[in-house]
Amino acid sequence: MSGTAQIGVTGLAVMGRNLARNFARNGLTVALHNRTTARTRALVDEFGDEGSFVPAESAREFVDALERPRRLIIMVKAGEPTDAVIQEFAPLLEEGDVIIDGGNAHYEDTRRRERELRERGIHFVGVGISGGEEGALHGPSIMPGGSTESYASLGPLLERIAAKAPDGTPCVTHVGPDGAGHFVKMVHNGIEYADMQLIAEAYHLLRSVAGYSPRRIADTFRRWNTGRLDSYLIEITAEVLSHTDAATGGPFVDIVEDRAEQKGTGRWTVQTALDLGVPVSGIAEAVFARSLSGHPALREASRSLQGPAAEPLDEEAAARFADQVEQALYASKIVSYTQGFHQIQAGSEEYGWDIDLGSVAAIWRAGCIIRAAFLDRIRSAFDSRPDLPSLLQDKQFAEEIGAAQDDWRATVATAVRQGVPTPGFSAALAYYDALRAERLPAALTQGQRDYFGAHTYRRTDRPGSFHTLWGGDRSEVAAD
Amino acid sequence: MSGTAQIGVTGLAVMGRNLARNFARNGLTVALHNRTTARTRALVDEFGDEGSFVPAESAREFVDALERPRRLIIMVKAGEPTDAVIQEFAPLLEEGDVIIDGGNAHYEDTRRRERELRERGIHFVGVGISGGEEGALHGPSIMPGGSTESYASLGPLLERIAAKAPDGTPCVTHVGPDGAGHFVKMVHNGIEYADMQLIAEAYHLLRSVAGYSPRRIADTFRRWNTGRLDSYLIEITAEVLSHTDAATGGPFVDIVEDRAEQKGTGRWTVQTALDLGVPVSGIAEAVFARSLSGHPALREASRSLQGPAAEPLDEEAAARFADQVEQALYASKIVSYTQGFHQIQAGSEEYGWDIDLGSVAAIWRAGCIIRAAFLDRIRSAFDSRPDLPSLLQDKQFAEEIGAAQDDWRATVATAVRQGVPTPGFSAALAYYDALRAERLPAALTQGQRDYFGAHTYRRTDRPGSFHTLWGGDRSEVAAD
Repeated sequence: MSGTAQIGVTGLAVMGRNLARNFARNGLTVALHNRTTARTRALVDEFGDEGSFVPAESAREFVDALERPRRLIIMVKAGEPTDAVIQEFAPLLEEGDVIIDGGNAHYEDTRRRERELRERGIHFVGVGISGGEEGALHGPSIMPGGSTESYASLGPLLERIAAKAPDGTPCVTHVGPDGAGHFVKMVHNGIEYADMQLIAEAYHLLRSVAGYSPRRIADTFRRWNTGRLDSYLIEITAEVLSHTDAATGGPFVDIVEDRAEQKGTGRWTVQTALDLGVPVSGIAEAVFARSLSGHPALREASRSLQGPAAEPLDEEAAARFADQVEQALYASKIVSYTQGFHQIQAGSEEYGWDIDLGSVAAIWRAGCIIRAAFLDRIRSAFDSRPDLPSLLQDKQFAEEIGAAQDDWRATVATAVRQGVPTPGFSAALAYYDALRAERLPAALTQGQRDYFGAHTYRRTDRPGSFHTLWGGDRSEVAAD
Repeated sequence: MSGTAQIGVTGLAVMGRNLARNFARNGLTVALHNRTTARTRALVDEFGDEGSFVPAESAREFVDALERPRRLIIMVKAGEPTDAVIQEFAPLLEEGDVIIDGGNAHYEDTRRRERELRERGIHFVGVGISGGEEGALHGPSIMPGGSTESYASLGPLLERIAAKAPDGTPCVTHVGPDGAGHFVKMVHNGIEYADMQLIAEAYHLLRSVAGYSPRRIADTFRRWNTGRLDSYLIEITAEVLSHTDAATGGPFVDIVEDRAEQKGTGRWTVQTALDLGVPVSGIAEAVFARSLSGHPALREASRSLQGPAAEPLDEEAAARFADQVEQALYASKIVSYTQGFHQIQAGSEEYGWDIDLGSVAAIWRAGCIIRAAFLDRIRSAFDSRPDLPSLLQDKQFAEEIGAAQDDWRATVATAVRQGVPTPGFSAALAYYDALRAERLPAALTQGQRDYFGAHTYRRTDRPGSFHTLWGGDRSEVAAD
């Protein structure tokens, strides 16, 4: 049997519900399904007048409600629940139908599922969706993987519900085959961790070194938000910092427990980068900073460790320092994105995804958490030179980071001297300086490895691998 | 059938061969086996007079040569080759026999193998062995996991071949059940990465900032090696740095390609720490530094990025700076070990291994790559207070790091100003300062998470989880 709904959504918790409403509001007929039918009915009761919904009571009914080839989006928890739903629906589908997973799946799971379903003639599309509940309803940034054929059928529908960039283009593109969409979504989240950590460090410095109040820092972020740092995260930082806690009458940020939680995608990003051999130190420090904040006993026991005396700044010096922090934040942000895009490039090569980095930057311009004016410039950088070896090689970014470096160094040196932790700023600067280095001390490291483990080394003056007989007469032997 | 050999070694590449010789030299009868029998014969031909060997041509013959309960050590490549050898031997063994894996297995594989073999009545012991070829022959540091019963049978043999600490005790202990031994060996290697990175940074600073020659830096390290930094890695650093390349007549370290390789255990350490929620930023930066060094095209393209002008130091200032670097190196080393032991503690809790941290420090005092005088003090710290929440809470380490911090900060500030990358020093200092912090900006991070994802937050003034209606009237609701 074949129905009239152009798309189906199964799993109607808040993300699924909002996505279904978004499709309906954009003129599509949407089949609805949920394990417990109460949720399905609630959606229709509450939002039925927003568009055309076809509620289904059973899996069979749901599948029959869809026009062919069927397109059904799974919006359930990542992991086993997703596999369970796939197993429930796959036997009811026919060749050419498309199962879409809109959850936060690990891209390796997506690769596995795509492979298994492909053998049964079913398209499986892992889709990264960013923007939270609000994004799902009003327009998220959408990162679909899967086959080109499935995108031909699915793309036009996703374009309708996606966020629109300032130039009007929908924030969705066919990222690449199988797990490419979930991979890019994972790195998006990793970059989001880094962005948030850098903002947190800027706040910490303005508070501790410049001596600014949360409200004044909010004003500073608002000002920054009118310039090159213009972004959603900077905007909401100002909102959070200017918020007053009703119960105490004090700054909201001061009554929140200083313990940041995480859900796993930042961790996955770093773990994957390690496998790919890509240094993503900024993202790693952001993940570690959250972990560290979550060890209250350890922190409590460490408060008595010795630190430097505070050196309060006068008003003028504080204002100058705030400007330096903006430079440090911007320069570190360039590094975070450099690292993140390097990881996407490496993943694309590893898995043969052929990802267009400019398109990735383009679809992050709106809808997602890291949306920023900045991303339009990253898009330009990759569009004008798709073989750009790194964002730092883009002429404009290189110039900007070069112009920022003095203040960046001054900021980190001040933080270090005054005992304010800036793991993100510091890691970004160390990455910049390591990349610039004519020679790295890695030569010593490799020499040590040869010494204790006969791991051999390469020479700068001729090809081949060599080993020095350290325990013998210290002559050199070819090791090829 | 039952033979006379107390131990058997299968896999006679250099590590297996040296381990077999070590057993024989210490009075044990050693059965020998290798896939190709030529290697077995070569060992007996060359080293047969070192002790009592029983060469076996087949797996059956090998097993029959062992006294019961049989103890056979597998010394083959980690991964599939190990599984293949286990599958080959397990059917020939009887209840109570012990298979020992002396390779660099991932502890999760060891857990799986132990579980599978336990069901068949066979003990499986994953053993971490550190010290390279030389250690295997003359006395390695040995980290066995597995059951208490298997250790009763195996321990006395391992004690004979293990390195001896300065106080004469053998560097082997029953680390804990199943994968505990391989886990601890993994973290050992992670700490080794961090140690090597910190040494590399110290070298880089003495070279670039103090303007010292490799030979002079070697002398500096030799001096350091007489004090609290006394360790194998500092010792060999001096050897490598003072070595002259015969072909060019210049310093060896200058003709070695500055590209450090890695074999995976550092990466595993960081990936596991991320899963355990333990910040191991020093180890992560060390792994990333190696990865970064291995991207020559990216580095080449980045050399033109803008950096600060060099500020050469006069002789007196250089000497003072060298002293500061020693403080920075020592303080950062304390942090690396703090992070590594935190990871072992967390792993022990996660898997119920009940690892004695003092014993781990004790068996690292000799035989292994990170052996150092320092480890005896770590042993004391944990022995005198087994519930020590962190190495930084030990009175003596806390005092030392407190005394070092001014110079540590000065070193990092100088590196940052002069454009020398010190990711390890910087990450360690940021960790120290974050742990010390009265309040972390994680409160802002959590506030942002509540803003864009309704992830809720905890309050400092009362229990429970809360959410602010950011899109509404910004009142607070309980979220439990």
